Amino acid sequence: MSPPYKLTYFDIMGLGEPIRIMLTYGQLEFEDCRVPKENWPNLKPNMPFGQLPVLEHHGRVSHQSMAICRYLAKEVKLIGKDSLEDLDIDAAVDTVNDFRQKIGKYHYESDETAKEAYIKTLFGEIVPFYLEKLDNMAKENAGYLVGSKLTWADLVFVGLIDYMNFMAKKDLLASAPNLQKVKEHVVNEPNIKKYMETRPNKH
Amino acid sequence: MSPPYKLTYFDIMGLGEPIRIMLTYGQLEFEDCRVPKENWPNLKPNMPFGQLPVLEHHGRVSHQSMAICRYLAKEVKLIGKDSLEDLDIDAAVDTVNDFRQKIGKYHYESDETAKEAYIKTLFGEIVPFYLEKLDNMAKENAGYLVGSKLTWADLVFVGLIDYMNFMAKKDLLASAPNLQKVKEHVVNEPNIKKYMETRPNKH
Repeated sequence: MSPPYKLTYFDIMGLGEPIRIMLTYGQLEFEDCRVPKENWPNLKPNMPFGQLPVLEHHGRVSHQSMAICRYLAKEVKLIGKDSLEDLDIDAAVDTVNDFRQKIGKYHYESDETAKEAYIKTLFGEIVPFYLEKLDNMAKENAGYLVGSKLTWADLVFVGLIDYMNFMAKKDLLASAPNLQKVKEHVVNEPNIKKYMETRPNKH
Repeated sequence: MSPPYKLTYFDIMGLGEPIRIMLTYGQLEFEDCRVPKENWPNLKPNMPFGQLPVLEHHGRVSHQSMAICRYLAKEVKLIGKDSLEDLDIDAAVDTVNDFRQKIGKYHYESDETAKEAYIKTLFGEIVPFYLEKLDNMAKENAGYLVGSKLTWADLVFVGLIDYMNFMAKKDLLASAPNLQKVKEHVVNEPNIKKYMETRPNKH
């Protein structure tokens, strides 16, 4: 019998890694389907909105990485204690993704002049601003992003940080001691620890 | 006594309008605080991540517009019947916002050469692609985005469409008959209908 979950994504961490980490944390057995670049043009027209990742489960095909993570968070019990705490978690997740997109704007900019112009704003203002705010959140929550306990916001953050570091070409957490604690909390979860020791470390 | 909700946003529809529509639908009394542009620099440093909208409620300050809408959807009973349907709703909401951001990339681009280059991709490929896919979703769901019934995904979509039309400088729904039905379903909700007759129609 095939496993109950099948994740389809490219052969990189990217937006697939938070999903892989959620599934791993909850010991939900999954097929980790990594599409070679040369096969993507053939596959793309069959994807819900022409994008990856998608998750096949319960006889359906789901898309949108954060929507998938939120669903899995319910399955593996990493959501908040009530709807107010879920709101805080959702806001943290959206903020981490805003931050990721602002770094992505730099990484994916093909015009060198525009890239040069943006680099000052990004590393002079945006990155320090987000890191300070997020690090404060982690400080107030004892090394977690929300509620002083492990939630799916932490797994999403740690699932995305390698991708963000790669795009920023630096270790974003170097001067963010409380975000380092968030990372430690996540990577020391036994199932995740085991997974990370052998996962494909590709960007 | 002051109302239980206070929304702070700019004096435009933008990202605040979906929240206003959610609150209106559920008859949740709220103060609609519209910040004049000249006051924003003073207010900005006090906002959670330097951004609006924020919602004050239950003695807290919440940010991130979609996180706020998801919370309100639980309060006003516009969520799915189970976690699988909530996943579909979340994916629809994220897709509508992806679409909005791709249009925003055009609207907010200050470099005229880059804007000209992007206009072909946007209106030649991206806009027709999203409209076709979303219109099909609405067709399959009898004039709703998910589950053939009213959910908060419909309210978010209709709450954002004026902003998207404004940025795109065209009526995006002109050739999307099933998305027009989504709009009709939402604007014919009695509380929303009443609100829309008198709301500030500003972009």
